[in-house]
Parts: sequence; C-alpha cells; structure tokens
Amino acid sequence: METQFSISRLDHSLREMLQRKVDRKTKPLGALGALENIAIQIGMIQQTLTPKLTNPHVLVFAGDHGIAREGVSAYPQEVTWQMVMNFLSGGAAINVFCKQHGIELKIVDAGVNHEFSNDTVGMIHNKTGMGTGSFANGMAMSIEQAQSCIATSAGIVKEIAKTGCTIIGFGEMGIANTSSAAILMSVLCNMPIEKCVGRGTGLDDVTLKHKLDVLKKSLAKNGKPDTPLNVLATFGGFEIAQLVGAMLQAAESQLIILIDGFIASAAYLVAQAIEPLVKEYCIFCHQSDEQAHALLLQYLQVKPLLSLNMRLGEGTGVAVAYPIIQSAVNFLNDMASFESARVSKKSE
Amino acid sequence: METQFSISRLDHSLREMLQRKVDRKTKPLGALGALENIAIQIGMIQQTLTPKLTNPHVLVFAGDHGIAREGVSAYPQEVTWQMVMNFLSGGAAINVFCKQHGIELKIVDAGVNHEFSNDTVGMIHNKTGMGTGSFANGMAMSIEQAQSCIATSAGIVKEIAKTGCTIIGFGEMGIANTSSAAILMSVLCNMPIEKCVGRGTGLDDVTLKHKLDVLKKSLAKNGKPDTPLNVLATFGGFEIAQLVGAMLQAAESQLIILIDGFIASAAYLVAQAIEPLVKEYCIFCHQSDEQAHALLLQYLQVKPLLSLNMRLGEGTGVAVAYPIIQSAVNFLNDMASFESARVSKKSE
Repeated sequence: METQFSISRLDHSLREMLQRKVDRKTKPLGALGALENIAIQIGMIQQTLTPKLTNPHVLVFAGDHGIAREGVSAYPQEVTWQMVMNFLSGGAAINVFCKQHGIELKIVDAGVNHEFSNDTVGMIHNKTGMGTGSFANGMAMSIEQAQSCIATSAGIVKEIAKTGCTIIGFGEMGIANTSSAAILMSVLCNMPIEKCVGRGTGLDDVTLKHKLDVLKKSLAKNGKPDTPLNVLATFGGFEIAQLVGAMLQAAESQLIILIDGFIASAAYLVAQAIEPLVKEYCIFCHQSDEQAHALLLQYLQVKPLLSLNMRLGEGTGVAVAYPIIQSAVNFLNDMASFESARVSKKSE
Repeated sequence: METQFSISRLDHSLREMLQRKVDRKTKPLGALGALENIAIQIGMIQQTLTPKLTNPHVLVFAGDHGIAREGVSAYPQEVTWQMVMNFLSGGAAINVFCKQHGIELKIVDAGVNHEFSNDTVGMIHNKTGMGTGSFANGMAMSIEQAQSCIATSAGIVKEIAKTGCTIIGFGEMGIANTSSAAILMSVLCNMPIEKCVGRGTGLDDVTLKHKLDVLKKSLAKNGKPDTPLNVLATFGGFEIAQLVGAMLQAAESQLIILIDGFIASAAYLVAQAIEPLVKEYCIFCHQSDEQAHALLLQYLQVKPLLSLNMRLGEGTGVAVAYPIIQSAVNFLNDMASFESARVSKKSE
C-alpha cells in the first residue's frame, strides 16, 4: 500500500430522492443543467436533501522546480516566492476573488526555494525542500519526500475539516510547473508528450520547442516509473505532491473538492490513480487556456463548469466558479415546488 | 425613423490605458481571459479606469403568445401568469439567484393573458394587451403596439437608470415564446426555420415536428416583413418587443447590458437591427441548451460567458453570471501591479 486513505464510496441511495426534489422545482425538467448535477452530487456527499456550504477554503500550494533551470518558463524562478509574498499581502487575483466570495485563503509553502520568516502571517509552513531537483537529471524528489508531502498536506486538510469547512478548493503556484504537469499527464494517460505540453505563462514558439525537447529528454532519461507514487516522485513538484495528499484527505473527510486548472488536474490524475473513489467528491471548475487541459479533462471524462480562457492557476478558476456552486445549493434549498407555488405541470 | 434612441458610440481612446492597467497586474499577459475583456469593456462604457457596478437590476418581461393555442409548447398558457405569481412570491430560480447576489429583481407585465390586481407588490404594470394574436393567422400585434412596447419599456429603464443603477440584465417569461424567437431568428438572420427551432421547455419528437410545421405555415402566411419593426410586430411577443425597447434605452443610458438566453438574444437581434451600436454595451451571459442559441450567438459573433446547459429563461443566465462580471471589475480595481508588489516581469 502506497498511501493510506479510507475514502467512502458515495451512498447513491439518496440520488433518486434528490432527483425528485430537483424535478418538483418550478422549472422544466433539467432546465438548470449543470446546476442540477452539482446539487445532486453535493446532496450525496453530505447525505442530505438540504446541503450547505460552510466555511469555504482555498488552499494554494507553492513550490519550486529544478526543471526551471532548464529555461522552460517565461518567468524567472524567483517569481514563485515573490508571488507568495503577493498572496500574503493580498494583491493577487486569488486574493481578490476569495475576498469577493467570503472564501478563506491559505497559502502553503510546500517547497519554495526561499526562506520565509516564521512569523509570516497567513502562511502554512510545510516545506519539503528548497525546490525539487531537476527531472532532466533524475528523480525530482525521493519516494520518502513524496510520501511526506502526501502525509503532511493530508494533516493540514484534516485540521481545516475540523473547523466546520465543508468545501475546499485547491490551487498552486510554482514557476515551471506546467512542465511537471505535462509529463505527469503524458505518463499517466499514456499520451505523447507533444499533446501534453503548452505555452504555460506565455512561451513563444522557440521556447515552446525548447520546453518540448527538455521534456522528451527527461522522459528518456527516467524511463517509465511503475507506480503512481513513483511517477509523482520522479516528475512531480512538492506543491503537486501536496495537492495529491490534500485531495485524498479531503475526500476521506467527505468535503466537496474543487479542482482548478491544468496543474491541479494533473495532481488529481495522480490522486485518482492512487484512489479512484476521490472522483465522486470533485467538481472541476474551469478549463484552462493551457492547451493540454481540454484533452486531460476529456481523458478524465469530466466537464468543467467554466471555460473563461483563464490560465493563471492560484486557484482562480475555483474561486470564480464558487458562486455558481452556491447557486446550485441555493436553488435546491430555496426554490418553490410546482405544488407549493400552484404552477401547472407539463401537459401530458 | 422607426424608433428614436440616441446611443453613443463608445469612446475607445481609453482602451489602451485600460489594457495597460490590466497588463501591469501580477499575472501573465492575458491570463485572466474573458475577465480581461469584460473589465476593459466596462471601463469604456463607464469611461473610467476604476469602474463600479452599482444597484444591479434584473428585469423579467412576461407576456403571452397567441401561437400557444397551436400546441407548440409543452406547458399550458396559464403557466405564464402562474410563474409571474411565483416570481412575485419569491419562489422561482431567478428570485433565488438575484437574492444571492444582491440584484434587484423587477417583474414587468408586458402582456400576460391574466388580470393582476393593482396592488401586486413588486410588479411593474405595463400591459400592452392580453397576449398577442396568433401569427399563424396574421400579425401578432399591430405596428402601434410594437412601438408602444418599445417606448414604454424604455421609460421603465430610464427611471431605473435614475436610481444609480449601472448594470441591468434582461430576462423573460412567456409560454410559447421560443416559437416567436425562432421565427425572428429565421427572418432576421435569413436562416431556414429548421435551424432555428428547438425543444423549448422539453418537447418530444412528435410535438417538435408539429411546432416546426406551425412555424413554416406561419412564415408562408405572413411573407417576409420589410423592416425590423415590422418583423417584430408580425412575429414577436409583447415581452420580446418590450425587451427591445429596454435594451435600446439601457444603451442610450450607458448602462452595462446583460443578455440572457435564446429569447433575450432574439430580442437583442431586433434591437441590433434597429441600432447596431447597442452591441458595445452588451455582455452575453449564457449559451442556452435550446439548440438554436449556439447558432444565433455565432451569427452575432459573440462568445457567451457561461455554457451551463441551462434553458430556463427568467434571466437566470444573467444572474448566475453576475458574480463573474463583478470579479472582472474587482481584479481591475484591487489587484496589485508588478511594480507595487515587486514581482519580477517576464524574462526577455
């Protein structure tokens, strides 16, 4: 056993009653589309006909990547810690959107190549190392480090669940982490790396070609690891590995899990390979403009709520989608039924 | 001159400064996708680098259709007034979503086939008639009625603009109004009616075929009217005609206009045919599951914010999209810049 999570299969016996409640609302059958599916999923996660979203959280895991030294990103590595400081001082997009929706935002130092002072307000210190090694030369991290990432981030989520949080979204920050995500996708989906690579934060054609070359060489160098945990240790990042543990624990704690863009979906791919039951707890929030994400979502057979051409990470797709999830819960709880409103039903 | 609206062309000289403000935010260029376009559009509508959404409104125009007597809808006509009562007592989907986002909801009786008492709280009485005539037999309304719809609904919007409202969304309710919208689309876009017709609130195959037959015969009966106003009078509904006037006035009043689904888009099509400048003030909120809507949006060359498989009308697409529009304004106002946050810019 690679990891130890005890995720309950959802009890689907409530589905029919939830569906009936949805169908009695004053609207044509199915007319609220995706909102109906979400309402039913959340009802099943919480095992109630009157679900609630309480104490919503977004966790942004930040980490640095050895592969950044190979020139695969448009931005220098120092941007990772600078953006973490920006998160902490409230100036990033994710701050703005979390504030808008009353979402508690936590920044986790999963392995940024920077010493943050211990009194940094609002940060969770969970550093596994000063950035990963470059997978161009071998494994990005040891198996022990990957296991530690999963175990410690699970601990963070467990604590948050105790505060009455019922819905948690996951984002990330890490210069060069689209490279890591692309390789994880290629290996775990068994797809050619060409289909998994993209422009990240905005590469031009020349650098995109270089990124692809680096990833091809890295794949050749490392071969194909045999278990999801080995794949994660070889090609992952500390923030990605901590996302994996956080997602698995959130499912064990029966939280609603909100998945952001390309990197978070790659972490989800690893989590699902470890424990497929995690899927029932997840809502995919946004299809990123990073070109491989559409393909990855298709592979996972999920339809994201939004497709706003964003490609920022940080959990921004989660935060922007949050009010729509709230709308799903609200209609289930607050709309009148045909009977209560005395509206005629469909002609037979 | 058919109607008299004086809509200002947007002053695009601010576009460059708005774009520069967006590009200095701590994110890769373009990484907030559709939110960036909306922020810039709203900045231009309000002619400021620091736009604000104030006193948001949704107006739901309700009206009945003579064509309903031909059996083109899955629901009986009385559902129009019953749903209006449901809106007024707060039990419909649009009530729930407006309440969630602090949007003021107004229900306009544009021409429902029912006498509402004068003291109905929360309703704007603007009845043009007890439902239109059936366009299977001739014009749905007279030219004078169409003109009156446009003028009186413009008056309603003018009053709302005086209250400090800067953003207004439009929805509708009217059994059989997808039939009206389908014909308006067919005539104004010059497309075969087969491509414009859909299942509305949930027709089965047999009734869908019947609906198509009725619409074909109605087109043959009425020929092709020569002006947008004649098209509207021949095939429109009172709620659709009032939507047209409301949209044109909202643009004249320089409000941000939120367009809902298929019916509202058909009304927009008429408004645009009368005064193309209305387009610059509009945000298309949701692509309906009604099959012709995708094609209509394509014809209009607009990309809607959401595509959640909803097909309910009532302005629900507008209300569900509203927080995303708020997010666009918020990031423009509240995110840090690279300079203020001391984050390194892209490598050259």
